[in-house]
Amino acid sequence: MKLTKTLALAGMLTALPALALAQDEAAPPLATDEFVWIMNSLLFLIGGFLVFFMAAGFAMLEGGLVRSKNVTMQMTKNVGLFSLAAIFYWLIGYNLMYPLGDWAIEGWFSGLFPAWAVLEPVGVTLAEADDASYASTGSDYIFQLMFCAATASIVSGALAERIKLWPFLIFTIVLTGFIYPLTASWQWGGGWLAEAGFSDFAGSTVVHACGAAAALAGAIVLGPRKGKYDKDGKVHPMPGSNLALATLGMFILWLGWFGFNGGSQLAMGSVGDVADVSRIFSNTNMAAASGAVAALILTQVMYGKVDLTMVLNGALAGLVSITAEPLAPSLFLAGIIGAVGGVIVVLTVPMLDKFKIDDVVGAIPVHGFAGIWGTFAVVLTGTSSIGPQILGMVGIIGASFVLSLIVWLILKAVMGIRVDEESEVNGLDTSELGMEAYPEFSRGGSA
Amino acid sequence: MKLTKTLALAGMLTALPALALAQDEAAPPLATDEFVWIMNSLLFLIGGFLVFFMAAGFAMLEGGLVRSKNVTMQMTKNVGLFSLAAIFYWLIGYNLMYPLGDWAIEGWFSGLFPAWAVLEPVGVTLAEADDASYASTGSDYIFQLMFCAATASIVSGALAERIKLWPFLIFTIVLTGFIYPLTASWQWGGGWLAEAGFSDFAGSTVVHACGAAAALAGAIVLGPRKGKYDKDGKVHPMPGSNLALATLGMFILWLGWFGFNGGSQLAMGSVGDVADVSRIFSNTNMAAASGAVAALILTQVMYGKVDLTMVLNGALAGLVSITAEPLAPSLFLAGIIGAVGGVIVVLTVPMLDKFKIDDVVGAIPVHGFAGIWGTFAVVLTGTSSIGPQILGMVGIIGASFVLSLIVWLILKAVMGIRVDEESEVNGLDTSELGMEAYPEFSRGGSA
Amino acid sequence: MKLTKTLALAGMLTALPALALAQDEAAPPLATDEFVWIMNSLLFLIGGFLVFFMAAGFAMLEGGLVRSKNVTMQMTKNVGLFSLAAIFYWLIGYNLMYPLGDWAIEGWFSGLFPAWAVLEPVGVTLAEADDASYASTGSDYIFQLMFCAATASIVSGALAERIKLWPFLIFTIVLTGFIYPLTASWQWGGGWLAEAGFSDFAGSTVVHACGAAAALAGAIVLGPRKGKYDKDGKVHPMPGSNLALATLGMFILWLGWFGFNGGSQLAMGSVGDVADVSRIFSNTNMAAASGAVAALILTQVMYGKVDLTMVLNGALAGLVSITAEPLAPSLFLAGIIGAVGGVIVVLTVPMLDKFKIDDVVGAIPVHGFAGIWGTFAVVLTGTSSIGPQILGMVGIIGASFVLSLIVWLILKAVMGIRVDEESEVNGLDTSELGMEAYPEFSRGGSA
Repeated sequence: MKLTKTLALAGMLTALPALALAQDEAAPPLATDEFVWIMNSLLFLIGGFLVFFMAAGFAMLEGGLVRSKNVTMQMTKNVGLFSLAAIFYWLIGYNLMYPLGDWAIEGWFSGLFPAWAVLEPVGVTLAEADDASYASTGSDYIFQLMFCAATASIVSGALAERIKLWPFLIFTIVLTGFIYPLTASWQWGGGWLAEAGFSDFAGSTVVHACGAAAALAGAIVLGPRKGKYDKDGKVHPMPGSNLALATLGMFILWLGWFGFNGGSQLAMGSVGDVADVSRIFSNTNMAAASGAVAALILTQVMYGKVDLTMVLNGALAGLVSITAEPLAPSLFLAGIIGAVGGVIVVLTVPMLDKFKIDDVVGAIPVHGFAGIWGTFAVVLTGTSSIGPQILGMVGIIGASFVLSLIVWLILKAVMGIRVDEESEVNGLDTSELGMEAYPEFSRGGSA
Repeated sequence: MKLTKTLALAGMLTALPALALAQDEAAPPLATDEFVWIMNSLLFLIGGFLVFFMAAGFAMLEGGLVRSKNVTMQMTKNVGLFSLAAIFYWLIGYNLMYPLGDWAIEGWFSGLFPAWAVLEPVGVTLAEADDASYASTGSDYIFQLMFCAATASIVSGALAERIKLWPFLIFTIVLTGFIYPLTASWQWGGGWLAEAGFSDFAGSTVVHACGAAAALAGAIVLGPRKGKYDKDGKVHPMPGSNLALATLGMFILWLGWFGFNGGSQLAMGSVGDVADVSRIFSNTNMAAASGAVAALILTQVMYGKVDLTMVLNGALAGLVSITAEPLAPSLFLAGIIGAVGGVIVVLTVPMLDKFKIDDVVGAIPVHGFAGIWGTFAVVLTGTSSIGPQILGMVGIIGASFVLSLIVWLILKAVMGIRVDEESEVNGLDTSELGMEAYPEFSRGGSA
Repeated sequence: MKLTKTLALAGMLTALPALALAQDEAAPPLATDEFVWIMNSLLFLIGGFLVFFMAAGFAMLEGGLVRSKNVTMQMTKNVGLFSLAAIFYWLIGYNLMYPLGDWAIEGWFSGLFPAWAVLEPVGVTLAEADDASYASTGSDYIFQLMFCAATASIVSGALAERIKLWPFLIFTIVLTGFIYPLTASWQWGGGWLAEAGFSDFAGSTVVHACGAAAALAGAIVLGPRKGKYDKDGKVHPMPGSNLALATLGMFILWLGWFGFNGGSQLAMGSVGDVADVSRIFSNTNMAAASGAVAALILTQVMYGKVDLTMVLNGALAGLVSITAEPLAPSLFLAGIIGAVGGVIVVLTVPMLDKFKIDDVVGAIPVHGFAGIWGTFAVVLTGTSSIGPQILGMVGIIGASFVLSLIVWLILKAVMGIRVDEESEVNGLDTSELGMEAYPEFSRGGSA
């Protein structure tokens, strides 16, 4: 790695051509186009590792909100889903989402897998790179992949504590390899929604509500956890086993969201772009904070006690809400958008229970209902109008829901998606995996 | 997000003007002033997300050091305080700290809230930006906010396990909206301390000792936890419930400190500035390591056993100590400064107990006493002299303590700040919030 | 920190010379050589904080995989080892690894400690910096230090649950001050392995297998945990106490690896370099994902149940495998390399048990066996040939093993390295440190 001071090593000098420049008497000026390409790529790389870390955030949030008897399973699912997403988004999804040829059905069907994601050759020059490129393919790929994986993480939380491992992982493959890339391509691949004027900056609908719709379909097919709802419709709370872990997960997600929204500016090579990324950071943070405070106040008012899980979900709902348009709002408007998101979560979590839809971590309210709100809220900033926004939501949420429902029904028919009752009572960790997450801590509570 | 290769989408081309440059035959050279502005903003953004993550670090550290019956409350307070800080620093604090007009009482009293933090418009150019600006307002705002929130996190740890939620949150509002911005403005807003030659690079006094003074005032008004000190003055240890979590918190804080100190260079657009940020990274790391090692050795020598909680606090004390001047010292001097910080913590934690001041996590020694040491240590580097350093500490710590004391006394008189005895014994989680953090893990120990 | 808008403060203007440029009518163009130096330094700084965070990742992974009675000790060791590495790599290691003079024995023996790591003076200019420099010394130092510390973290996990604290910490000093810097200098200091054509991009052998060899030597001298193997050779599993924490650790390590491999490109100041860093990010992620999926499938096939700890180690093995050459492979080949790494871990963990070598967290398979595979895999990309790769592995692994063995034997003879049997049964936390990690959670399981 480190060059010796003498640079005597064969080959190393050529590997670092820029170094030679440092020894020129009068170094040439830097060309703006090279600078822009470098900075855009750097934005994707920073955004990429931040959004990657959201995989850990989802795992910790969900691991903290399930009961201890299901924590090993939740960890396994979250590591597995991210890993499978990385493979299948490369194998199929990326090129399905951004076809190499013209956008058309024949474009990506001309060969079933027309080309796996192919990166620039080592040491590419700007002239060799694609004419229209504005950043390295590798940086774009890694950044886009993280968005794709997020959709599956959303599903993972909602269906916790009763779904079998392998059907879940197979669904993940379909979601990250096909469903998300297809629906996302309608907007970000330059498809019909983009042409219709739909506006969704970083994916309130394209990512979050898409994932929530897939989760909702799964929750309906899967049914609620045993004992969650009794015959009178009474709801039995099943408290999470580790709220410190859940809080950590929320903070990690908040951190990652700076990359999620900030990176979606797609450019950092000009004064205007870096100022815009800065606006996005500020607005994203404000929306999260407002969502948390809204949930804090509202649970105090409604229940006489602050509910930490609602505060965590309130912050996340604030983040989802601002995701459709984190650039245009003022800080004040960003705060309002986030606060409404927090309110929505507090009000809709019990609503789902009325329909006996058992969403273990509140993923459908957070990513779905707040995502819908955020997509509408774009209209408040004048960036879009109500028609295209409704069109986009109906199109993406509808398609994600219907396609997911079909896949879930097929999986249910073919291999079954739910563990048997005894396994569910004993916990998935011992029954399915033979490995407890906390083998030394004896259990009490509502286990 | 992703542009299609054909760029056929209406409007997108204009949204990314830099892209057009990539297609020019002979791209223009990059102007140095634009580069500097971009890189400075980028430094704030990277610093901003790193320091943001310190909110999670504080939460994990404190959540690990309180008993399990108070963990949900500690999480709620830490999420709540950060969120409220984000709102009130925007609403009041930021402009109080950096007045838009000339620095004077009339400056920020000309209107009570003369202007909320206002970011540059979307797609700003350098010419449109403020003449004297050196980075985007949004990047500066997000970076400064994180410092403000840190002061409240310090208070949160010291007062754990017996304070009511809402009085704490109200105090947070006053601290982050008024007290910190006021005292910080004396130095970083170009106020009288800056003019007097006080030097505090990233805030050993301005941030850390300010927070510790607010915590000390609170601890005095609040009184110690029931059973912590008996009538003979004997101290009863109340061990933290999760030292793995506390260790994670320490590591996250250490990580965040690279942004805290490195970002305080305020500039990364020249060879000298990026080399300085590199020096700061190296010195910050060295001070933390030396603080930890000092505590490791000293607890072994004093008690015959290494004390992990002291090692964690030793690392943090090293970090606080170097914060007043992380740039000028050699690595050797940075190590000495950090090691002394670690020694101070080991020696002063028991000292506080002598005065029956109950600081649950050791926040006052870490952020206060090590902060004072670090502020004095600036003199060792020749950056400042002893007079202005004492003046700065007396001014900021004194003001923070007195103002905080007044607020705590008012809160105590008006609404009470402490839970009743039964609630404290049962734990704040069940009594105040009705939600346990680890409902399934039965309790033993000193709960 | 913040400049006032009026810039009236004495001295501040000179501290930010770049600022003046912003007010020039026609700002000068940016010189490419300055840009390159700045961006390279920035890469090291970002890489540095990412790899730093791996210290937390190792701590969490190992803390989750040991039994709860040894968690405080594991935390103490991990904080201690990182801190000591930071001090001794500065004091000795850095200059041993990259001698200031010509590379020769007399080079670094001319004085025993010829020069501690010395950073550039504050506000250095490119002309003042070393002619051959391509980044700031401080950024290089912090980046290299993190690699050094990683070797000790590897040892920490393997020897958990029975080693005494101080002998371990003394070994850490020798490893990070002498052994690693010496063997690493053969490659990265421009020594004989570099001249022989050995290729190890980011350290599959230089870092990971080096650490694993030191761990193997320690595990042999130390012996297995009491009760791990009975007389019939039967293996008694001792399950980790907190798989959520272990999963978090794995995710943090994965995150840090973007810095580990990406930063090892050593340059980010040209289109080719940033595209290469992007390739490295993509390949690194693909290898990790493939390693996890390989372990997921293989444990299902071999044992009928997915084994989460193997999946975590599979991901890490994928990361270690790609580390020797993360740039050259296609995404497809990166996936293959990572998947083979995952398979190796699943197959070799039981193999070590056959030899009654007790590696608590699987560090030797993950960092050693997968590291060897990764070093061989370089040949697949054509970057090196088989001869130099074998030479490099024999040289570094052999030297690390032999030197470590000598140190462990001396430590064993002089002070003893293992706690007594009663302490081991009761747990190191109470017996050695007098402090439990989870004092309130009663123990069941195999404690």
